[in-house]
Amino acid sequence: MPLLVLLTNLQRSTVGLFVSTPLIMDYSKGSSVFTVPKTAPIRVGFVGLNATKGWAIKTHYPAILQLSSQFQITALYSPEIETSIATIQRLKLGNATAFPTLKSFASSATVDMIVVTIQVSSHYEVLMSLLKYSQSNPNFKYLFVEWALACSLDQAESIYKAAAERGLQTIISLQGRKSPYILRAKELISQGYIGDINSIEIAGNGGWYGYERPAKSPKYIYEMGNGVDLVSTTFGHTIDILQYMTSSYFSRIHAMVFNNIPEQELIDEYGNRLGQRVPKTVPDHLLFQGTLLNGNVPVSCSFKGGKPTKKFTKNLVIDIHGTKGDLKLEGDAGFAEISNLVLYYSGMSENDFPSANGQQPRVGSGYDAGKEIMEVYHLRSYNAVIGNIHRLYQSISDFHYNTKKISALPSQFVMQGFDFEGFPTFMDALILHRLIESVYRSNMMGSTLNVSNISHCSL
Amino acid sequence: MPLLVLLTNLQRSTVGLFVSTPLIMDYSKGSSVFTVPKTAPIRVGFVGLNATKGWAIKTHYPAILQLSSQFQITALYSPEIETSIATIQRLKLGNATAFPTLKSFASSATVDMIVVTIQVSSHYEVLMSLLKYSQSNPNFKYLFVEWALACSLDQAESIYKAAAERGLQTIISLQGRKSPYILRAKELISQGYIGDINSIEIAGNGGWYGYERPAKSPKYIYEMGNGVDLVSTTFGHTIDILQYMTSSYFSRIHAMVFNNIPEQELIDEYGNRLGQRVPKTVPDHLLFQGTLLNGNVPVSCSFKGGKPTKKFTKNLVIDIHGTKGDLKLEGDAGFAEISNLVLYYSGMSENDFPSANGQQPRVGSGYDAGKEIMEVYHLRSYNAVIGNIHRLYQSISDFHYNTKKISALPSQFVMQGFDFEGFPTFMDALILHRLIESVYRSNMMGSTLNVSNISHCSL
Repeated sequence: MPLLVLLTNLQRSTVGLFVSTPLIMDYSKGSSVFTVPKTAPIRVGFVGLNATKGWAIKTHYPAILQLSSQFQITALYSPEIETSIATIQRLKLGNATAFPTLKSFASSATVDMIVVTIQVSSHYEVLMSLLKYSQSNPNFKYLFVEWALACSLDQAESIYKAAAERGLQTIISLQGRKSPYILRAKELISQGYIGDINSIEIAGNGGWYGYERPAKSPKYIYEMGNGVDLVSTTFGHTIDILQYMTSSYFSRIHAMVFNNIPEQELIDEYGNRLGQRVPKTVPDHLLFQGTLLNGNVPVSCSFKGGKPTKKFTKNLVIDIHGTKGDLKLEGDAGFAEISNLVLYYSGMSENDFPSANGQQPRVGSGYDAGKEIMEVYHLRSYNAVIGNIHRLYQSISDFHYNTKKISALPSQFVMQGFDFEGFPTFMDALILHRLIESVYRSNMMGSTLNVSNISHCSL
Repeated sequence: MPLLVLLTNLQRSTVGLFVSTPLIMDYSKGSSVFTVPKTAPIRVGFVGLNATKGWAIKTHYPAILQLSSQFQITALYSPEIETSIATIQRLKLGNATAFPTLKSFASSATVDMIVVTIQVSSHYEVLMSLLKYSQSNPNFKYLFVEWALACSLDQAESIYKAAAERGLQTIISLQGRKSPYILRAKELISQGYIGDINSIEIAGNGGWYGYERPAKSPKYIYEMGNGVDLVSTTFGHTIDILQYMTSSYFSRIHAMVFNNIPEQELIDEYGNRLGQRVPKTVPDHLLFQGTLLNGNVPVSCSFKGGKPTKKFTKNLVIDIHGTKGDLKLEGDAGFAEISNLVLYYSGMSENDFPSANGQQPRVGSGYDAGKEIMEVYHLRSYNAVIGNIHRLYQSISDFHYNTKKISALPSQFVMQGFDFEGFPTFMDALILHRLIESVYRSNMMGSTLNVSNISHCSL
């Protein structure tokens, strides 16, 4: 292993290996605004926050707890009001009301933002009802939904349309885009530090979908059509991150989807087999290859279900090769959006390197010309599960309060696309849905598909 | 990095990590027969051996020099007889004759085996002439040709047919099959040490075909149709090795072939750019994915041209994942057949492990049941360029003299297929040619192709 230098320990060596000028790039840092804004906090209503279980209590709740001057939970809805009341008591949500119906919740004037963190299979019904019932809500402005935004492209399109007609600012939790590693990689790429990308390889290991299933694990994640599987979740998040980092959608794609493990063995919490086999209909492997629109770059992906291996390779590896250098992202789990990663960068310093953010390079360009540069970027104690969601809320806050004082800040983000600023919207989700739909179509037809139009905003 | 144990330093630890029972598997070792056989050596005629340049002097010559009791060079042919005479003098080939014409060479009664090591683009013409002129040669029995056996499937088929009609024992230098690493991996797989294979990823980096071209480098390797390129050579050798290790051909394949670098920059021997651009028509990238016939195993491959990266990944990585363990092969160059590799194995010992070669396991099966096993296999001073060719000659010798005293040794190997014994033949070459042809066809048609019939022996 060659010389690796921690970013947090900026060092320079005279033997030809030293750290580049990362200090002048800062997108990978969190927002610096933690002070109380002059105006009132954004009032948040949750569908799916339960103090005792589920995704929201582990991620959204701690994420916005750290942003208490910008966000305030004011409303909860769950099909059983007792759950909402218990959650309010347990979390001491002094400003929150438990609503008995989705209708009363959606029309409440105490809500600026609604966050939906429920099973994907319920997205369509709940969101369409929400959008209907909130028609005359004067304050409701932000609608934040967990990926995958419903179970199919059709459903996602309907939801997108209904939200667009209402003029809502939508947010989708493709939170990998807020990962500091992804943003650092995107910075290095966009500022030319690896030159032109010419090859990308990805191998991911989706923990479940293997030979064994924990008996406690919910059945729906093993059943096709519920919007949570190796293709929609593991591949979906990862390929969205890849497109975001490289600032390019795909032009052509080909995919093969496998269900080689149609039956799983139930295991208890200690890993003991219980002697019972249960059917699995979701895929356990995806082979995907294609070309990026920018530069016709070949991309090779293999997403595998089953037990993590962790012996000779990490469960997530993204290799990005360029004409001037390489980037490698590694993670212990094949879920880039919720994993703490390690980013490796290697490149060659050149005279004609772009100066970041228009500033002069920290090191004189004549001095380090042609020298090898290396960097390892890793935040040892970063909690990616909460952290990436936290940064997503920060970006909503940055937009709402215009904390960065951007003079031409748009009144609405239709889509984030590949911008550093902003956050992914339902349009970004829709584009990803189209790619996923094309994965299944390519698999079924056995054909390479031209997907260069899927990023067009029109429906 | 977990505990790694060198095979040559067999050690056992009581903490649950120890070496399995590799001593009872020995296919990865070379033949032990180095003594003078009772009968006469195999008399070898070379087309393409030149004492001062080329492939044969670097590989075939040193390889058979170590087998001087089994092989004797008795004939040389080259278009200019002076070259042959000079080679005989320089190498002190006391028993060799320089022939003035291919006809006199091919019909010489002093030749048992002809080895053809010339440019692939000349294979067809030379081999067809050889096969014609040697019709009445009483002793000519072995025909050994360098991969790729001509430039196209059509040519390869014609050569195969002509050789089969003559009843010759053919040998093709798909010498990766003789690499001790490949044989060790094949042993581990075939004896169940990684269970059922469920996923394979390959990334290779073919050194040339990149942005720069050494000015001294011969032009023909950058021109399409000469049988030496990223697909025929880099991919060809590697995928042959993969099929051989896993004992499976492919059922379905899909490929995308790229020429993203249609012009290269000429460089001198010091790497300085000479300011001259030259056209390149051979591919610089191949994306290949498919499924193995055995077990519908997903295989993902990315073969890249250009400069070796060597920073965060090796230039050749083959990851084979199974239900009980993993294998990883790594090499510094993307040419598995001529590289010294490192083989990593990790698995789980179980009671029901097959005992190798019918012998009892070295360690009591009760003792190590369920324990984790790891192994690193690397022969530090192994010269793979010569070594794999050397082992190929050994296997010809083993066959010719039946040194292993196999009672039912066939009088001819039509194909090696996936046997440990023997050597790859023109039929093995033909099957590989069919796969390569399907790669280009899949790329052109944009379709997944069913290739499950290409291993059938019929033409």
